[in-house]
Amino acid sequence: MSTYLMTLQYDGTRYNGWQKQGNTPNTIQEKLESLLTRLYGFPVEIAGSGRTDAGVHALGQTASFRIPDKADHYSCEDLFSQMNLYLPLDIRVLSVIPAGERFHARLLAKSKIYEYRIDTGSPADVFHRRYALHVQERLDMAAMEEAARRLTGAHDFLGFCANKHMKKSSLRTIYHIELRQEGVFLIISFCGNGFLYNMVRIMTGTLIEVGLHQKSPEDIDQILWQRDRSLAGFTAPPQGLFLVSVSYQ
Amino acid sequence: MSTYLMTLQYDGTRYNGWQKQGNTPNTIQEKLESLLTRLYGFPVEIAGSGRTDAGVHALGQTASFRIPDKADHYSCEDLFSQMNLYLPLDIRVLSVIPAGERFHARLLAKSKIYEYRIDTGSPADVFHRRYALHVQERLDMAAMEEAARRLTGAHDFLGFCANKHMKKSSLRTIYHIELRQEGVFLIISFCGNGFLYNMVRIMTGTLIEVGLHQKSPEDIDQILWQRDRSLAGFTAPPQGLFLVSVSYQ
Repeated sequence: MSTYLMTLQYDGTRYNGWQKQGNTPNTIQEKLESLLTRLYGFPVEIAGSGRTDAGVHALGQTASFRIPDKADHYSCEDLFSQMNLYLPLDIRVLSVIPAGERFHARLLAKSKIYEYRIDTGSPADVFHRRYALHVQERLDMAAMEEAARRLTGAHDFLGFCANKHMKKSSLRTIYHIELRQEGVFLIISFCGNGFLYNMVRIMTGTLIEVGLHQKSPEDIDQILWQRDRSLAGFTAPPQGLFLVSVSYQ
Repeated sequence: MSTYLMTLQYDGTRYNGWQKQGNTPNTIQEKLESLLTRLYGFPVEIAGSGRTDAGVHALGQTASFRIPDKADHYSCEDLFSQMNLYLPLDIRVLSVIPAGERFHARLLAKSKIYEYRIDTGSPADVFHRRYALHVQERLDMAAMEEAARRLTGAHDFLGFCANKHMKKSSLRTIYHIELRQEGVFLIISFCGNGFLYNMVRIMTGTLIEVGLHQKSPEDIDQILWQRDRSLAGFTAPPQGLFLVSVSYQ
């Protein structure tokens, strides 16, 4: 068996996410699998580092797949050029590299970085309308920084999870949350060892509510402690969210 | 009469340009005029600084319109907020200011800046697929700079005009052309006192052909001298072109 690791960029606007529960059509995973299946002539399954929701974008999603030795006809360069030739223009393969035979893009992921982009300008930038959330009201950055500090660390994040019936552990570690201003854009970057369903979008919505003084930074401690989704903020819409990178180190 | 000057940003992807010859539907001008007509309750006509082609974008298009004093119900702030409330999200009003009664956005324009964006990365950036031309082959920047130098100045640009039957003067002055690299993007910026039909796109196509060594910088002098469109390069596609600003000074 040969195992390959792909890094991918995609504009999630047109897609029903990386892969939906059940057999939702028009997912990123489906586009990639059907192309690989066509190239190799037998069904190829890929494992993404994780699902991204409908409308969420990726700057550096990763996915792995395995090919039996006797069918291993394509070099990494072949795969890079063939896939970018046949994929739709809103999905690009940034790189393909050989990986250890037992490599798995999801099971071996050590940390991920997500970014959420907020357009604070007036009016909203037309070229970022699909790639940012527009928030016209003034945001209190100091309060948001303080709330972000309270989210950082090892916690049970069930209060920031959209799935009420989590059977598996909802313990995760957030290594850091950074807020930076780039022109009129406020970018919140989250680095952690894993994220629950909708967790980044709920954390973002909560940070925005803190920035608007609808919540206080201290409320974060309560949400973490009570593990109650209804105490947290709104789920920020998908178009502002980017999966930036996945690390295996 | 009160005269207003608007500055506009738009994503041209969905539109048939600023205004087409005849009554093509779905133009930027039509969207703005029908909204102003609705707001004021009588037909309002606007004068853009010039037409942009189908698919061309604007960071700072300008347009003026006149309102009889007895109907002048809206302040500039009202117009800014009402227009941004009702316009589609791919057209935004950046500012509305009062102008002298005899102001006219096209007739009084002194100079314009256009930018053409080329994505030289591999693969193409998915988030710029509608906002740049992808050129994968290496471009000789020094040759392009030399060709740009030869285009600069006062010339008869008929060889760079898509309209064969120009009756008016095809003399224009280009004040400067700047090539700059921003990451994998090569941006060509053109500042001039006016541009003929498709002139920026034909100059861009010609500069790209010089960068690919399909033409030499010296060919520019021949195209200008012969005034023959067939000697110039291809018409670069609209999605890479941005009207950046219009100056009245």
